[in-house]
Amino acid sequence: MLKSEDILSPFSITAKSSETKARAGVLYTRRGAIHTPVFMPVATQASVKALNDEDLKAMGVECILSNTYHLYLRPGTATLKQLGGLHKFMKWDRSILTDSGGFQVFSLSHLRKITEEGVLFQSHHDGSKHLFTPENVIRFQSEIDSDIWVCLDVCVRNPSDKKEAMGGLKSTKNWAERAIAEYHRTVPAQDIAQNPDGTFTVKHPLQFGIVQGSVYPDLRQEAAMHMRELPVHGYCIGGLSVGEGKEEMATALSAAVGFLPENRPRYFMGLGSPEDLWECVERGVDMFDCVWPTRTARNGRVMTADGNIYIRKTEYRLDERPIEEDCGCYACRNYSRAYLSHLHRSGEFLSHRLLSIHNINFLMRTMKIIRKAIEDDNFAEVKAQYLKRFNASKEK
Amino acid sequence: MLKSEDILSPFSITAKSSETKARAGVLYTRRGAIHTPVFMPVATQASVKALNDEDLKAMGVECILSNTYHLYLRPGTATLKQLGGLHKFMKWDRSILTDSGGFQVFSLSHLRKITEEGVLFQSHHDGSKHLFTPENVIRFQSEIDSDIWVCLDVCVRNPSDKKEAMGGLKSTKNWAERAIAEYHRTVPAQDIAQNPDGTFTVKHPLQFGIVQGSVYPDLRQEAAMHMRELPVHGYCIGGLSVGEGKEEMATALSAAVGFLPENRPRYFMGLGSPEDLWECVERGVDMFDCVWPTRTARNGRVMTADGNIYIRKTEYRLDERPIEEDCGCYACRNYSRAYLSHLHRSGEFLSHRLLSIHNINFLMRTMKIIRKAIEDDNFAEVKAQYLKRFNASKEK
Repeated sequence: MLKSEDILSPFSITAKSSETKARAGVLYTRRGAIHTPVFMPVATQASVKALNDEDLKAMGVECILSNTYHLYLRPGTATLKQLGGLHKFMKWDRSILTDSGGFQVFSLSHLRKITEEGVLFQSHHDGSKHLFTPENVIRFQSEIDSDIWVCLDVCVRNPSDKKEAMGGLKSTKNWAERAIAEYHRTVPAQDIAQNPDGTFTVKHPLQFGIVQGSVYPDLRQEAAMHMRELPVHGYCIGGLSVGEGKEEMATALSAAVGFLPENRPRYFMGLGSPEDLWECVERGVDMFDCVWPTRTARNGRVMTADGNIYIRKTEYRLDERPIEEDCGCYACRNYSRAYLSHLHRSGEFLSHRLLSIHNINFLMRTMKIIRKAIEDDNFAEVKAQYLKRFNASKEK
Repeated sequence: MLKSEDILSPFSITAKSSETKARAGVLYTRRGAIHTPVFMPVATQASVKALNDEDLKAMGVECILSNTYHLYLRPGTATLKQLGGLHKFMKWDRSILTDSGGFQVFSLSHLRKITEEGVLFQSHHDGSKHLFTPENVIRFQSEIDSDIWVCLDVCVRNPSDKKEAMGGLKSTKNWAERAIAEYHRTVPAQDIAQNPDGTFTVKHPLQFGIVQGSVYPDLRQEAAMHMRELPVHGYCIGGLSVGEGKEEMATALSAAVGFLPENRPRYFMGLGSPEDLWECVERGVDMFDCVWPTRTARNGRVMTADGNIYIRKTEYRLDERPIEEDCGCYACRNYSRAYLSHLHRSGEFLSHRLLSIHNINFLMRTMKIIRKAIEDDNFAEVKAQYLKRFNASKEK
């Protein structure tokens, strides 16, 4: 079996914060460069809800996430393969990361029976039974033809006692080794090359492992130390932000990151509030995804530098200003709060599109601010200013 | 009181079919030219569902319809006035026709009490009571600041006995005179001028009257003969396509059109299937609106030259073709039937946008074919070809 040092990760760190663990960099995939720290919008069912490729590109989105679990059930990964892969299917020519399905099997499925072989689960659509194994999940991602593949893992509920957490971690570690072996069988040619200018040329999909261990720092350390020996291009931090406290999350995260190598990207799965982004970048995280900005938009909530706004409130009925004066997103360039308030109150679909654009763009802008603060090496100061302003008032 | 001949209608007929009553023309408003026969998409609540101005302009939409009843209840016409009118509110700088609310009071309201003064009704949102009068409906349209205003009318159910139909018509006639008087008080300067090149310069909103009379040809004739004496810029045909048979509709329509002057536009309210468009243009209608293309799109049904398609059917799951090869709409240029089928099956909002674009574009193309057939004076032949192909197979 290959070891970590046998493969190259196409990730270059371009700036580091001297006072924190934050770093800025570029991850290269077959589809192009991803500037980190990065936020990845979620295309759960081959669509970032209410948006399309032009909307996302206009916001500078470089990578989206799609869910293997959902795509496997509908339209089916074999179908996707027959149709030329997910990029062609949904018309998205930039990077796609697919997760492993481990989290959805845990959170959505009606049944979850973990055996040595894999995990048996029932579809949340029709109750039909299916088996995910470390090997077939790699095959499904190969059929999807995404650019970053993730190893199948076991998520445990929160709170979990240590025994349960250890059991989940044991399977996750074992399955990671099998998933990585399967990946190297599927993608035998490791043709990643670093160019003289520091960029990388990548011709095949990348693979990330997942670090589990619940809220227990020693288990997170064990998971990280196991994973860092394996030949993967990056590391997911899974099983956090599932109900544990902020302190517990930060401690578990730091325990994991502390034992991961510097030169490969770290991806915190399922996190997307501005405050969480700052906190986790500070602790060394490079990549994020979350359905939150689009889901909260559908509920009429939009982010601004001065905190969140509930657009449906009566006070916005006559407000001719855009959501944010200096935003520049498609919604803010073209529509007033009054109109957006009316659209949401009226249940109009256009509301979902416009508010989702604003919220994703807000997170893209936040990541830009974060990257600049790392480059300017004033991360702590800019973070404090940003969060002071963002949290100055309760939701308006 | 002014008479019909005292005002100019900014409508020029550019071609006539020699074998039928079909004609092609241009109606000029403050916002530009509307090429007739025209289909107007419906922005019920200040939004053509799931679409925005860029989507509509890309399809060549020249005029949309919005509903006075809905705008009056939400966001309120006084609110719209304060915000600079509906065009600015929803960001649409081409023409807007507003209907009178008569149909919605009839079809949506929980209560409808018609008195000499006007119609008392309950909001379908919250049951609150409101009064529409011929005069205040003109004021509401003035606050909306639409480009074509319509007189308040009384719709009767189908079937209605003759006495009921006569009662409705009596109020409609009386209210039309009051609405027209109110319009001329509100818009005193009649500054419509015909230019040497035959186009018109229009600087104020236009007004259309409504011809009622249920399915009774003699009542339709009476309504048309009354309306043709009044100083309005065009004529709505109301109260049809509400459940009566095709034959009854055609007879009532012809009875009305036969007594309307040639040189002013005729607008059939609430009609939008391809077959109906051909049939009514043949009988001398110039303008149409309908929620049908967008509503049916949300239900997964799309129109093609070869008939309707239910995109959700299993047979489209692997179909890499666009909805229509030679369509050219945004959906057909960019997405496969397989993807659209998946989106609709998955309940994704993007499905509503893309299928609505296709259906509206299909009607815009149909109107182009109709206009060309009138110009080429082969209306009957092209109509027969079009409908033969469209109806050749049941829904696929």
